[in-house]
Amino acid sequence: MKLLEEMILNQGVILEGNVLKVDNFLNHQIDPGLMEKIGNEFYEYFKDKSVTKVLTVESSGIAPALMTAAKLQVPLVFIKKSKPSTMNDPLFCEVYSYTKQTTVTLCMERRFLNQEDRILFIDDFLANGQAFMGVEKMIKETKAQIVGVGMVIDKAFQKGHAYIVDQGYDLLSLAKISSFEDGVIEFD
Amino acid sequence: MKLLEEMILNQGVILEGNVLKVDNFLNHQIDPGLMEKIGNEFYEYFKDKSVTKVLTVESSGIAPALMTAAKLQVPLVFIKKSKPSTMNDPLFCEVYSYTKQTTVTLCMERRFLNQEDRILFIDDFLANGQAFMGVEKMIKETKAQIVGVGMVIDKAFQKGHAYIVDQGYDLLSLAKISSFEDGVIEFD
Repeated sequence: MKLLEEMILNQGVILEGNVLKVDNFLNHQIDPGLMEKIGNEFYEYFKDKSVTKVLTVESSGIAPALMTAAKLQVPLVFIKKSKPSTMNDPLFCEVYSYTKQTTVTLCMERRFLNQEDRILFIDDFLANGQAFMGVEKMIKETKAQIVGVGMVIDKAFQKGHAYIVDQGYDLLSLAKISSFEDGVIEFD
Repeated sequence: MKLLEEMILNQGVILEGNVLKVDNFLNHQIDPGLMEKIGNEFYEYFKDKSVTKVLTVESSGIAPALMTAAKLQVPLVFIKKSKPSTMNDPLFCEVYSYTKQTTVTLCMERRFLNQEDRILFIDDFLANGQAFMGVEKMIKETKAQIVGVGMVIDKAFQKGHAYIVDQGYDLLSLAKISSFEDGVIEFD
């Protein structure tokens, strides 16, 4: 997605540990027009997959996932990063966040997924794939099926990309970064 | 907003401590069609206020705030509930969450607001107004101006509603709950 790549080149900042900071338009301040275009891209690619639910992880996944769910006209479920006191029958998963260097508990109500569900998982970033693997484990428990994976920014040189492709999932990455060498962002 | 009131009556669950659980369509699973209608309502009410930025607090505020920002064609900034390691010059505020019975640190990059900004603050719930007061304090530090406050669900019998009205802010609440007496939800 050309526009997204240009915004990453013009406004992205590379921090230590291959962290790409894009808080001008995706992770903190959000560009709603860009989110609509992102939703359209995911919609066009996954519209024939009979998606019944879009899933994401709070918080930065919500905006692109919401615009995708709005186009597909299906509900969005956002997985939480802590167990709210008001959950009845939660699914849990512990995942390690390399960015935050800490373990995070992913959590969602079991009743929002069932074996009839065809899930499109959308997230803002793919790096080592820890969040994806956690979500995959939770979805498996409900016997729902992952029919697509949409990543806004895919640091494809890290482990997550290969994992998702190796499992045979249909992955669409809107900005696929092949390297950060010498502080220069290269797209695939 | 009739549709929202009906969804609250049909799907909302009242928990201990006047907590209203609406995780079927707002706080965990999100109904994107409802969010579009919510965005339209806020847009129609605030469109002549020359809003330059929509502000909300992660995570449940993001969906209604994004749809509002998309209609207004202005950026959305979501305030974080912890300090990410990648923030440069953050504004902080400690607020008490009655629902979670704990203190939460609100945090945002200072550079996203300046004295020219005209802020529309959108949130999913108004109860005791602690989050609003924290955000108000942070906004004051930047000398930006709050020109409107939009709440999806306003538990108007708690302290937040009176506080916002008393300060003279222009408040639109899409579902204004006057009481929860005997487990029956009454709207104003």
